[in-house]
Amino acid sequence: MNKFWSDVTKNLSPYVPGEQPQDQTYIKLNTNENPFPPSEMAVKAINNNVSDSLRLYPDPEAKKLITAIAEYYNIDKNKIFVSNGSDEVLAFSFLAFFKNNNAITFPNITYSFYPVYCNLYNIEFNNFPLNENFEIDISEIPENSGGIIFPNPNAPTGLYLGIEAIEEVLIKNPNVVVIIDEAYIDFGGISAIQLSDKYPNLLIIQTFSKSRSLAGLRVGFAIGHQGLIEGLNRVKNSFNSYPLDTLAIEGSVAAIQDDKYFKDGCEKIIKIRNWVEKELKSISFYVLPSKANFLFVKHAEYDAEILYRELKNKGILVRHFNAPKISDFLRISIGTEDEMRIFIKELQSIVVQNSI
Amino acid sequence: MNKFWSDVTKNLSPYVPGEQPQDQTYIKLNTNENPFPPSEMAVKAINNNVSDSLRLYPDPEAKKLITAIAEYYNIDKNKIFVSNGSDEVLAFSFLAFFKNNNAITFPNITYSFYPVYCNLYNIEFNNFPLNENFEIDISEIPENSGGIIFPNPNAPTGLYLGIEAIEEVLIKNPNVVVIIDEAYIDFGGISAIQLSDKYPNLLIIQTFSKSRSLAGLRVGFAIGHQGLIEGLNRVKNSFNSYPLDTLAIEGSVAAIQDDKYFKDGCEKIIKIRNWVEKELKSISFYVLPSKANFLFVKHAEYDAEILYRELKNKGILVRHFNAPKISDFLRISIGTEDEMRIFIKELQSIVVQNSI
Repeated sequence: MNKFWSDVTKNLSPYVPGEQPQDQTYIKLNTNENPFPPSEMAVKAINNNVSDSLRLYPDPEAKKLITAIAEYYNIDKNKIFVSNGSDEVLAFSFLAFFKNNNAITFPNITYSFYPVYCNLYNIEFNNFPLNENFEIDISEIPENSGGIIFPNPNAPTGLYLGIEAIEEVLIKNPNVVVIIDEAYIDFGGISAIQLSDKYPNLLIIQTFSKSRSLAGLRVGFAIGHQGLIEGLNRVKNSFNSYPLDTLAIEGSVAAIQDDKYFKDGCEKIIKIRNWVEKELKSISFYVLPSKANFLFVKHAEYDAEILYRELKNKGILVRHFNAPKISDFLRISIGTEDEMRIFIKELQSIVVQNSI
Repeated sequence: MNKFWSDVTKNLSPYVPGEQPQDQTYIKLNTNENPFPPSEMAVKAINNNVSDSLRLYPDPEAKKLITAIAEYYNIDKNKIFVSNGSDEVLAFSFLAFFKNNNAITFPNITYSFYPVYCNLYNIEFNNFPLNENFEIDISEIPENSGGIIFPNPNAPTGLYLGIEAIEEVLIKNPNVVVIIDEAYIDFGGISAIQLSDKYPNLLIIQTFSKSRSLAGLRVGFAIGHQGLIEGLNRVKNSFNSYPLDTLAIEGSVAAIQDDKYFKDGCEKIIKIRNWVEKELKSISFYVLPSKANFLFVKHAEYDAEILYRELKNKGILVRHFNAPKISDFLRISIGTEDEMRIFIKELQSIVVQNSI
């Protein structure tokens, strides 16, 4: 605590990201990165723009990227907002739409950055409970909340909520913004983008970090009614005129245009996920049915934190959340087939060997 | 105005950056970019890192960049904060240190983003007047303010305040944070970094956008007492875990290590600035003595806005601020010798030809 900190700063409880070890080579199954490289077209586009022109500011409106996203999803350009990773898009959205008199709401088990944003901007919030299968039950969403947000698929559960349920939430809450955080939507879910023309209170947030293998480039975007996008631009332009650098813009434009590579990659991950799910079940893991690029799993006997540590000793990083209701679980990002084979083998050596 | 906007959003007056035309090739003397390319070492470092590893998140702490800055300035690593451009560093700093009960203060003519941040975070502010020569007069800084910020050299005047005056401000205001925004310090000023061990209330903010020719990469940093840096990290980690992408980290590390190129570039700009100053004076311009990579100038007869427009018609962009006390001035970024020769020639053709 420092005497110069504002009260806001004193009361913050910052988000803690998954480990990003710089010193040792792990099999990294802990931060939901894509195990496959980015599109070669993206790599080429970045290389082509590493030039003298880096001395110039980027386009503050990133029009080239907005145009590429508009063409890909066949929507109006004025329905798209882009920024420095979907976490930044979320941060702007909380300030733009959730700083109201009524408490906003999100599930009691979800992306742990949401309460951090509330703390940062002094936004009241409450949580609605997941059901006993860890699913979002929309009847639990409180009435008259100041705003609603949840990831779909949810994190860290990986469970997907159907588009009809989302539409019901939008219809029931026409006076507040409903944010669907679709960081993991491309691994088997159906995006709510198709609802965005119909519901002016819907904001969808996506990222290039997962399905497009560009976590290192920091690009996220939002899709919604023009009025919501204008609000986001007001906040962004009161914070940083140029959140997206030149190379991030060029790389993400090429990535979204390389549709075949993107779809093939997502399919491969889904295939590996299904196979890993079976393997884990065969060694007594309870596995939630995932539509994300990770699995949320619990062993019948073994303590999750011990498994996390033993795997780390063997050079494999997974994520353990020391939080209520989920401390028995591990979140396993889907790696390459080779990585997952090693993971399964090492895990077997821990849980099977020890039970003999 | 959209019914879903928060009150904060409704009341914002976003910053308007200088024009970044995407459609036409101008001689760009309007946003204080460096006319010389980035260091070849930086370009090489970026190229070497455009690889499969972009699928991974960057180091959230950007330790490699912090180490490089620490080595360059010979200071402790825990006195350094890095983020996505100095505008983002400023935005975090306002929330971390300026959101208090007392109004903060900055000059009545200065970087126009400061009141925007105040608006964003609901921070009260007042302005202290520059003197009749547009200089910062530290005796005008109000007592008992909640915080003090000014650029040194000041923007858009380019006028530099000596280190003794800054020390006096620090001594007189020991209980609030004093932020010296040194975006332009490398073009002839002496940095206040040397005071940072002595004054725990001093925060210095710099950027790679100007003197290191990397505006397109978005890298800024702050130097100050460990307690202030911790405060900034609390805010940053409540907003975005990874504001700096992998390529920005690698490029800026190499740029700061290429000291000879950096110093040669700054010297060249100073030399061109001095020459342009003389030329402008010879055609009846009043030129403030600048220690920045731009000149702030006023013609004896010609209206600044008309000059701005006529130059734009001739393919040269300069910056005109339609704001009280400075609407008679133009801000001219220093370009290459060739660019400035064309600029002078075109300007002569406007002001000299017309006065015959």
